[in-house]
Amino acid sequence: MRVGRFITFEGIDGSGKSTQARLLAERMEDAGQDVVLTREPGGSPGAEEIRSLLVEGDPGRWSPETEILLFTAARRDHVERTIRPALDRGATVICDRFADSTRVYQGAARAELRGTVDTLHALMIGLEPDLTFVLDMDDRRALERGLARGSGEDRFEELGQDFQARARAGFRALSADFTDRCVPIDASGTIAEIAAAIDAALADRAA
Amino acid sequence: MRVGRFITFEGIDGSGKSTQARLLAERMEDAGQDVVLTREPGGSPGAEEIRSLLVEGDPGRWSPETEILLFTAARRDHVERTIRPALDRGATVICDRFADSTRVYQGAARAELRGTVDTLHALMIGLEPDLTFVLDMDDRRALERGLARGSGEDRFEELGQDFQARARAGFRALSADFTDRCVPIDASGTIAEIAAAIDAALADRAA
Ligand SMILES: Nc1ncnc2c1ncn2[C@@H]1O[C@H](COP(=O)(O)OP(=O)(O)OP(=O)(O)O)[C@@H](O)[C@H]1O
Ligand SMILES: Nc1ncnc2c1ncn2[C@@H]1O[C@H](COP(=O)(O)OP(=O)(O)OP(=O)(O)O)[C@@H](O)[C@H]1O
Ligand SMILES: [Mg+2]
Ligand SMILES: [Mg+2]
Repeated sequence: MRVGRFITFEGIDGSGKSTQARLLAERMEDAGQDVVLTREPGGSPGAEEIRSLLVEGDPGRWSPETEILLFTAARRDHVERTIRPALDRGATVICDRFADSTRVYQGAARAELRGTVDTLHALMIGLEPDLTFVLDMDDRRALERGLARGSGEDRFEELGQDFQARARAGFRALSADFTDRCVPIDASGTIAEIAAAIDAALADRAA
Repeated sequence: MRVGRFITFEGIDGSGKSTQARLLAERMEDAGQDVVLTREPGGSPGAEEIRSLLVEGDPGRWSPETEILLFTAARRDHVERTIRPALDRGATVICDRFADSTRVYQGAARAELRGTVDTLHALMIGLEPDLTFVLDMDDRRALERGLARGSGEDRFEELGQDFQARARAGFRALSADFTDRCVPIDASGTIAEIAAAIDAALADRAA
């Protein structure tokens, strides 16, 4: 049985997901593994187009319900065109955010939306990761990291500190809900420290 | 009780929906009514952007499942931003295609998708028209009308004659399923004849 074939990174904005996902993919490639590094929203040509509808523009551009539908559409395309084909040929897929981000962010926006997210996921996606690293750190410090970056895709970051704090609590609750696949990681250290914690968790699972 | 506040036009490509929807809106406006003429996919700024993802490009650009999700996202936005506000202020809404088109076209593509369409509609949309005109005519003649127009938005028309024939059968089945709100209209006549049939059906319902 293969462990951690489909690995995801989750956590609040600026917590270091993209950094650690990229570094893990590099370490695995250096070890000779077939690795596909991908991200959400996006990760396939169609999903990237849907992504640009989601991450640009005003925070109030879409209602939470429309947003959930667009995320699910992008995810369906991403799974069909990128993730499933890679898993089927035996590659390891490392994905920067996946369904858990939708669960947490929509739930943080309005608690009763969590049921809608879960129903749509069960109906249209189904796939769950084998392993999820949940990067946890102070939301104020994470927001500063994220804003310093200035990528232009700031729609979610503009939702502000209160929202980030609710999202942090949401990701912690997620780790508690899915203990079989979620590994909480202290993301307040240096990039090298966090990478070491990730490797330790992977070695632990492989044992 | 108001009859036909939310009126939709359905039927295969080229059957005259846009023509008749526009003419009905004009007749109602001339009679002093508050009318909102809209269309799907599209009908609100956000939904129009989703529409452009749906109607342009290759027929195989999206899987049927992703397509259903995008149609539902566009419809949710359209209902929230255009249809509901208009109905709430007491206007009559005339819509050129609505959920029935998704039911029929996705069902014609693959019969088992109908269940997915219905589940998503119940979960995320809910709204049904008060009155639906289902324009019925020979699919070969309708396709010729549509192709003659040459709008550039030909992704569905490119699916060809077999598909149009299955869609025609799908719209007929729809009229039989929802007899309370669906009025089948013979769309093979002149524009004026069809408009007269629509007015007769409206007068019938108002009586
Ligand atoms: N451990 C760390 N210490 C300090 N800075 C870091 C650390 N990890 C990442 N950074 C920097 O913080 C910023 C955010 O990191 P990164 O883009 O990896 O976060 P992210 O979780 O992917 O954010 P987002 O959710 O906004 O995509 C980047 O500029 C990155 O270089
Ligand atoms: N009764 C009619 N007789 C002849 N031509 C017609 C008739 N009604 C519409 N047309 C013409 O046929 C073409 C298609 O009509 P229309 O655009 O109204 O159809 P439609 O059902 O909206 O098509 P689509 O599904 O592709 O949007 C147009 O060029 C229109 O002018
Ligand atoms: Mg990132
Ligand atoms: Mg039309």
